[in-house]
Amino acid sequence: MMIELQSFAAGKWVAPDGNARQMFSAVTGEMIARGGAALDTDAMIRYAVEVGGPALRAMDFHARARMLKALAQHIDSRKEELYALNPLTGATRADGWIDIDGGIGTMFVYASKGRREMPEGHVYIEGETEQLSRNGTFLGQHVAVPLRGVAVHINAFNFPIWGMLEKLAPALLAGVPCIVKPATATSYLTEACVRVMLSSGFLPDGALQLIIGGTGDLLDRLGPQDVVSFTGSADTALMLRSNPHLLKRGTRFIAEQDSLNCSVLGPDVTPDAPEFDLFIKEAAREITTKAGQKCTAIRRIIVPQAQFDAVADALSARLSGTRIGDPALESTRMGALAGASQKQDVITNLRRIAEEAERICGDPDLMQVDGADAGAGAFLPPTLYRCSDPDSARNVHEIEAFGPVSTVMPYRDLDHACDLANRGGGSLVASVITHDPQVAREVVLRSGAWHGRIYINDRDSMGEATGHGSPLPHMIHGGPGRAGGGEELGGIRGVLHYMQRVAVQGSPDMLTSVTGQWVPGSGEKKAPAHPFQLTFDEIEVGHTINTAQRQVSLEDIEHFAAFTGDTFYAHMDEAAAAANPFFPGRVAHGYLLLSFAAGLFVQPDPGPVLANTGLNSLSFQKPVSPGDSLWVRLTARRKTRRTDTYGEVRWHATLYNQDDEQTAAYELLTMVSYSR
Amino acid sequence: MMIELQSFAAGKWVAPDGNARQMFSAVTGEMIARGGAALDTDAMIRYAVEVGGPALRAMDFHARARMLKALAQHIDSRKEELYALNPLTGATRADGWIDIDGGIGTMFVYASKGRREMPEGHVYIEGETEQLSRNGTFLGQHVAVPLRGVAVHINAFNFPIWGMLEKLAPALLAGVPCIVKPATATSYLTEACVRVMLSSGFLPDGALQLIIGGTGDLLDRLGPQDVVSFTGSADTALMLRSNPHLLKRGTRFIAEQDSLNCSVLGPDVTPDAPEFDLFIKEAAREITTKAGQKCTAIRRIIVPQAQFDAVADALSARLSGTRIGDPALESTRMGALAGASQKQDVITNLRRIAEEAERICGDPDLMQVDGADAGAGAFLPPTLYRCSDPDSARNVHEIEAFGPVSTVMPYRDLDHACDLANRGGGSLVASVITHDPQVAREVVLRSGAWHGRIYINDRDSMGEATGHGSPLPHMIHGGPGRAGGGEELGGIRGVLHYMQRVAVQGSPDMLTSVTGQWVPGSGEKKAPAHPFQLTFDEIEVGHTINTAQRQVSLEDIEHFAAFTGDTFYAHMDEAAAAANPFFPGRVAHGYLLLSFAAGLFVQPDPGPVLANTGLNSLSFQKPVSPGDSLWVRLTARRKTRRTDTYGEVRWHATLYNQDDEQTAAYELLTMVSYSR
Repeated sequence: MMIELQSFAAGKWVAPDGNARQMFSAVTGEMIARGGAALDTDAMIRYAVEVGGPALRAMDFHARARMLKALAQHIDSRKEELYALNPLTGATRADGWIDIDGGIGTMFVYASKGRREMPEGHVYIEGETEQLSRNGTFLGQHVAVPLRGVAVHINAFNFPIWGMLEKLAPALLAGVPCIVKPATATSYLTEACVRVMLSSGFLPDGALQLIIGGTGDLLDRLGPQDVVSFTGSADTALMLRSNPHLLKRGTRFIAEQDSLNCSVLGPDVTPDAPEFDLFIKEAAREITTKAGQKCTAIRRIIVPQAQFDAVADALSARLSGTRIGDPALESTRMGALAGASQKQDVITNLRRIAEEAERICGDPDLMQVDGADAGAGAFLPPTLYRCSDPDSARNVHEIEAFGPVSTVMPYRDLDHACDLANRGGGSLVASVITHDPQVAREVVLRSGAWHGRIYINDRDSMGEATGHGSPLPHMIHGGPGRAGGGEELGGIRGVLHYMQRVAVQGSPDMLTSVTGQWVPGSGEKKAPAHPFQLTFDEIEVGHTINTAQRQVSLEDIEHFAAFTGDTFYAHMDEAAAAANPFFPGRVAHGYLLLSFAAGLFVQPDPGPVLANTGLNSLSFQKPVSPGDSLWVRLTARRKTRRTDTYGEVRWHATLYNQDDEQTAAYELLTMVSYSR
Repeated sequence: MMIELQSFAAGKWVAPDGNARQMFSAVTGEMIARGGAALDTDAMIRYAVEVGGPALRAMDFHARARMLKALAQHIDSRKEELYALNPLTGATRADGWIDIDGGIGTMFVYASKGRREMPEGHVYIEGETEQLSRNGTFLGQHVAVPLRGVAVHINAFNFPIWGMLEKLAPALLAGVPCIVKPATATSYLTEACVRVMLSSGFLPDGALQLIIGGTGDLLDRLGPQDVVSFTGSADTALMLRSNPHLLKRGTRFIAEQDSLNCSVLGPDVTPDAPEFDLFIKEAAREITTKAGQKCTAIRRIIVPQAQFDAVADALSARLSGTRIGDPALESTRMGALAGASQKQDVITNLRRIAEEAERICGDPDLMQVDGADAGAGAFLPPTLYRCSDPDSARNVHEIEAFGPVSTVMPYRDLDHACDLANRGGGSLVASVITHDPQVAREVVLRSGAWHGRIYINDRDSMGEATGHGSPLPHMIHGGPGRAGGGEELGGIRGVLHYMQRVAVQGSPDMLTSVTGQWVPGSGEKKAPAHPFQLTFDEIEVGHTINTAQRQVSLEDIEHFAAFTGDTFYAHMDEAAAAANPFFPGRVAHGYLLLSFAAGLFVQPDPGPVLANTGLNSLSFQKPVSPGDSLWVRLTARRKTRRTDTYGEVRWHATLYNQDDEQTAAYELLTMVSYSR
C-alpha cells in the first residue's frame, strides 16, 4: 500500500513533487504514503478570499448551518473509508471513534447551534441593545460580521479528522473560507476526509483547501482579516506566534497547546467511595486512549497524602492489565504512538521525569504486543511515575511526555492541591473527582484562572459524564499560559473567532436595518390585515397593531382573584397594598394584564399563527389601578424559519395605560405557518 | 511652577532620581515637572499579587462596583484640582471635560453595570447552562474568575485621566490589581488623580500603583496571569507585542492603537439635507477637539464625488474660523498639541500626506494664536487636505498625522466608499452620516470587518448622538489590524479581559455550588415556612415549594376566554384545535396556566415578598387539556441585594400536569424585603 497524497490548492488537486514528505505506518514502520508540493500560496489565498468568501457570505447563518449538517451526514455515510485508514495511525477503533465520529458529531452540534442560536440573517446580534441616550433616539448594539480573509488551520497529528472538523465547523458557520494544513504524519487520513467533503458538492468553490506537507510562504502573505488557528506543541506555537509578519499585520492567532493537565482526587474521597474507582478509571482511560497522545490527557494525578499509596497501587494494577497490540485487532485496548519520532520524543522526556519521580509501572522491556512487531511499531507501555515531593519537583509540572505517561503526586490539603494543579502554568483541563460540592467550588475559585476547563465528576454524574479528556463543541477548548491562551469551540463563541465584533451606534431605525431585528423606537408598518391572519412570509418585521382600550375594574380584579386563587394582598387589601413600596393601593394582577392583553390582540379565527409558545423578558413597569385602562402595541420583531411548514415570529409587546404610560413590556413567541 | 512627580511602588511614594525625565508646558514650552526613578519591579508585582489581588478578590463583584462608585464620587468632588493642571497639556476646558469628566463618568457606568449585570458573588456566570447529557445529570456552564496576576496599563499622552480610569474600572471590577504607567509627557495630571484616589481610602492596599517614567524590567517579569493593556502608536505596540518574554509566557496583550479612522457621507445626502451640516460639524469637531490628538479622530473624509467640492469648501470654511490660543482662555476653541515633539511628528507626517493631496486649509504661517507665543507653544492650525485620486494614493490611508489634520476624498458609489474606508487597514471607528437605513446596513456588511465601531448619525439621532470620536463604556473600543486588534470597554466584555473564562462541567449540584445559582436538577431544600413569608436573608438558594394540584376544567377555559376576550380557536373549537399541529384538541390558555400557577404558589398575606416584577424565558412545553391537573414547583434560584431595604429573588418555576410531565417553565422575579 502506498498512497500518493495530493494537496487541494486554488481549485486543483496537486500531486507530490520534489518537496514531498514521507509517511509511515505507526504499526509496522513501513512507508505508506507521500505527499507535498510547492504551492502557489498567493493563488490559494485569492481563491479563498475572492471565490470562497463571497460564496459563503452570500449564504446566511442558517444556510451555512444546513450545509454543515449535510456535510456531516455525508461524511457519516462514508466514514468506513476513514476507519479503514485509522489503524495506520496507531489508533484502535475506539480511538478512531473519538476522531472520526467525534469530528462528525462536532459538526452536527454546530449545525444545530447555528440554527438555534444564530439569526436567519447575515449579522450576528450579540447582547442587548444599549441605551445610550435619554430619549432613546441614539442606541448601541454589538453585532458580529464575518472576517473577509481566510482561516488557516494548522492541526496536530493526533486527531487528523476531529482536529480538522472542529475548526472547520465554526469557521464555515461564520462564513470564512479555510485552508487546512494537517500534521504530515497522519495527513493521509485528513486527505481522505477532504476528498469526501469536496466530492459531496455541499461546499461552495473556494471554501476549503488542503495543504499536504509544508505551508511555504503562506503565513507571510496573511493580513488583519485572516486567522491562524494552531494546535500542537508549545514550541511550534511560540515560533508561529513570534512570526514578525503576523505580528506586524495583526493576523489573529489562536493556539491550543497540549499542556500539563491534571486530575485531583477530592480530600473527601476514600478508597471505599464510588468516586475512588471512578478516579482510577478516568485516569487509566486518559493514559491509554490514543496511547496518551491527547492534548487533554492527565499528566499529573494529584491525590490526598493519605490516598497516595492506594491510588498508585490501584492505578498501576489497572494499567498493567492493558492489552497492547495491533490497533486493528479487536482485543487491543491500546495501540501504537503515531510514529517512531513521536516515540523517541516521549522516551527523551521520560528521562527528565525520571529525575524526580520513580517509575512504578510500564517497563518497556516487559511489554507484550499482540499481533505486531514491538520493535518496528511505535509501541510503548502505559507508564506511571510516583513523585513524593511535588513541591520541589519541576520537570513533572513542566515536561510533557506526549504518550501513555502520567505521574502521581500527593497533597496536604485542598489549597496545596490547587497550587500543585496551577504549577502546570496553564492547562486545557483540570478535573476534580469529589462528592463534596464545596470542594468543587473551592477548586474553581482557587484554580479556575489557570485552566480552560474544570471537569467535576462524582457518583451522581458518572453515568452520563463525557470524560476528563473530551472537548465538547458546547464548551470552550483552550487554556491560559502553557495551554496557548486560545479558545476553540464553546458553541457560538468559537464562531466569533472568525468574525469581527462591531459596536454599531445609531437611531432605532438604523439598528433595525443593520440587524434585521425590529428595535423599539423604530418605525412601524401598518399590516395589510390583522397580523395573526398573515402567513410567515407576509408578515414583515415592523408590522404593528395597536389594540383597542379596555378598562380594568375593581370587579375584574376581585373576579380574577377568586377565579385563579391569587388573593395576594396587593390586589385585595387597599391599606396593606398602599403600605407596599411598589403599589399606590390595590392594583391589578400582572397575570390579569397579560391575559387581558392577549384578549385584546388575539384574532380568534384559525389562521397562520398557530401557537404562542413562550414569552421573554417580561417586566412590569407601572402598576395598573382599578379604573385604569389598558391597550397593547404589538410589533413583529424577528422571523426565523424553523420547520418545513412553519417558522417562529417574535413580537415586541408593550402594554400602556389610558395616559399612554408603559405598564409592561415583553417579547412574545409565536409559531406561524408558511401557508394559510 | 515645577512639580516633582513621584511613582507609587509597593506601597511607597518614590521621588525622582537620576533616571528622572522632564515634562514641558504645551503652551509655553517651559519645563514644568520631572519624575521617574529606578523601581523595584519585583516588589511591585509582589505587592499587587500578594496584597492587592487577595484583597480585591475577597470582595464580591457588587462590593467592587460600590468601591468604583465611591471612587468616582471622590474624584468628582476634587476634579477642579485636575482641571487646574489640564491647560498645561494644551487642552481647553472642553477638551478636559472629555478627559476628566469622561473618565469619572466611565467609572460610574462600570459601577452601575457591575451591580446590574454581574452577580452578587465571586463567579461570573456567562451564557446558558449547556445540556451535555440526556438525563441532565451532567451539565456545562461557562463562568469567569479573576486572573491571579497584575494588570499593567501603558497609557497614551492624550487622555491622562480618561485613559487611566477607563482601564482601571473594568480591571478593578474584575478583581485584578493594577500598575498604571502613563505617557511621560502628561503624567503630572495622571499622578494628581492617582493621589486623589489613593487618599480616598476606598482602594485596598496593593490595588493601584503608579510608574512615572520608564517601566524598567517590569514586562520581563510578567507571566500568564498578567495583562498588558497598551494604548498608543502602532510602532510601540508592535515592539511590545513582539517582546519575546511576553510571547513565551503567554501574557495577555491588549492594544488600542490610533488608526486611520474615516467618516463617510452617504450617497443620499445633498448639501440641502440636515445630514450635510451634521457631517461638516462632526468632521470639524473631530479635527479640532484635543487639537486632533484623539485615537478615534477622523483622518479620512470620504464623500460622494458630486459633493467633493461642497464638502471641501464647507469644511475648510468652518475650520478656518477656529480660534486657536492659550487653552486656559475661555474664547479658545482649540489649544496646543501636547508638546514640541508631538508637533514635530505631525509636521513630518504632513509632508507625506502632501505628496498625494493638496492642502486647502491650515497654512501655519497665517495662524493666529490668542494669548500665547505661537513659536514657543505646540500650536498648529486645523489642516485639511484634498485627495482627488484616493485609489492610487497610499499615504493618506496609512500615514497618521496625530494632530488637527484630515483629508477629504471622493467616492464613485457606496461599494467604492466602503473599500476606501477599509483601506485604513483596520480602524477604531468609521462613521456614516446618512438618512437611508439601507446605506447603513450596506456599510456594516461591507466594512464592518475592518472597524471596531460603526457610528451612524442622521437628523433623527443627532440631538442625542454622542459623537464619532467618543468611546463609550457601553460599547467596545478597539479595532482590527492597524487599530491593534484589541478591545477595551464594551460593558462587561471589558471586565472579562481581566478574567479567565472556564468551562465548568459537572452535576447540577456541583454547578449550583460553583455558581451560587440554583441549577435545575440539583437538590432542593425544604423552606422553614412558605418562602413568601421569609425575609431576603432567610431565603436560601434551593428553597422549594411544591404546590397542591388544581384541575383545569372546560368550564375554566371557557370562563377565562369570556372574561379576558381571548377566544382563540385553540381554546374554543375542538375540531379546529385538533387540526393545529401543536394541540391535541381544545387546550387551556397559556395565560390561564400562569394565572392558576400564581394562585397555587402565592401566599396572600403581607410578608417580605413585595412584588412580582417580571418573568423570563417562559416556554410552554406541553399543552394542558380540559380535565388535566396542574401543580407548580417553585425554587429560589438567585438572590441579589438591590436597595437598602429589599433585594431581588429569582425563582425557577416549573408547571406539571397530573402525570408530572412538565407543561411550562419560567424564571419569576420578585422583590423581597430584608425585614418582616
